[in-house]
Amino acid sequence: MKLAILGTGMVGRTIAARLATLGHEVALGTRDPNASRARPAPAGGQTLADWLAANPTVALMRFDDAARFGDMVLAALSGGGAVETLGAAASGIGAKILVDITNPLDFSRGMPPSLFVSNTDSLAEAIQRALPDARLVKTLNTVNANVMVEPGLVKGGEHTMFVCGNDPAARAEVADFLRTQFGWTDVMDLGDLTAARGMEAALHLWLKLWGAIGTPVFGIKVVR
Amino acid sequence: MKLAILGTGMVGRTIAARLATLGHEVALGTRDPNASRARPAPAGGQTLADWLAANPTVALMRFDDAARFGDMVLAALSGGGAVETLGAAASGIGAKILVDITNPLDFSRGMPPSLFVSNTDSLAEAIQRALPDARLVKTLNTVNANVMVEPGLVKGGEHTMFVCGNDPAARAEVADFLRTQFGWTDVMDLGDLTAARGMEAALHLWLKLWGAIGTPVFGIKVVR
Repeated sequence: MKLAILGTGMVGRTIAARLATLGHEVALGTRDPNASRARPAPAGGQTLADWLAANPTVALMRFDDAARFGDMVLAALSGGGAVETLGAAASGIGAKILVDITNPLDFSRGMPPSLFVSNTDSLAEAIQRALPDARLVKTLNTVNANVMVEPGLVKGGEHTMFVCGNDPAARAEVADFLRTQFGWTDVMDLGDLTAARGMEAALHLWLKLWGAIGTPVFGIKVVR
Repeated sequence: MKLAILGTGMVGRTIAARLATLGHEVALGTRDPNASRARPAPAGGQTLADWLAANPTVALMRFDDAARFGDMVLAALSGGGAVETLGAAASGIGAKILVDITNPLDFSRGMPPSLFVSNTDSLAEAIQRALPDARLVKTLNTVNANVMVEPGLVKGGEHTMFVCGNDPAARAEVADFLRTQFGWTDVMDLGDLTAARGMEAALHLWLKLWGAIGTPVFGIKVVR
């Protein structure tokens, strides 16, 4: 499968590496590939150039070229610029499935972050309004990047992932993708995109759980 | 133990009945006991007079009298009036442990409700500001009333309850109360009262889970 991952941060790289390992054709999208290749390493991290050298089958493309390349597009962007970035890549995304992994983090008040949209709206809904043709499915934003692609890191994978979106067939397709590609065993379909309000607001609790547990490698199981 | 439950709705009644069954001395607090006794039944429910007849050891008192009576005070109030009601009972609450079970539900936009405070503040923090002496501990607001007092209703009780508050000793005391009185086996201490933002925001996800599962009798297990 041809997969586009938009965003070259930790989440984008983790997902891209995993999908490339699984044998997919993977394009990593960024605003300006040359500038991204030249950028110094983030604090405690690897330069993108070094990362690409270590993951030689992953192609680096402009956002819109990557979106055009992919059969499915995954948005692993920072929340603040996501609507603008995806809007600019809308022609490449078209009516494809757009997997939205973003969180609307607001660091303007310091740590811990709050959310710049919440309660009666969500970033997922804002993205869907900007790209009305995209078959948007919100998922994966409730766990750490390593857990997203390898849920078995947490107690053999006995925890829950959620999907929501306005297109039931797209939700089912993404749920199947999570099961077959990443190994999620419990994927719950929460219905239309208003459920993204709860999935994004879960960040508040997630941050406190991270503090209490001392590692971001944990999961939430819906016991029923 | 002498326990005051403020609020005569489903949550207050469920907790009061359970604590009375366990042999505690229980006072149920309301604004005007005579008016509450005379009130017709809520839709699909029981009049308070009938409920009191079925739970004869539970005493009905004014909010402030009940608070004075209790060694510990549990707030099972509707979110909208909670700050005002608890403020009026502040002299009875004093420096006691105040267990805050409220959710800041806003039904003004119809169903499902949104929250009238969230993200950068919480109802628990608003209550604590109004009653700075109270040793406030937020808990139980993330599950259905029947699950609060009997977590074993869900898969033998293999799920998680949270406590937070600014007084570590009060958090530990309430966590112990939850274990010994209600049978919670996994109580996580999330630290200071800012964690209430996450615990209250969990309502958004809880409502969608209720819809997906078809019953409010479920729980969340933090897998770590």
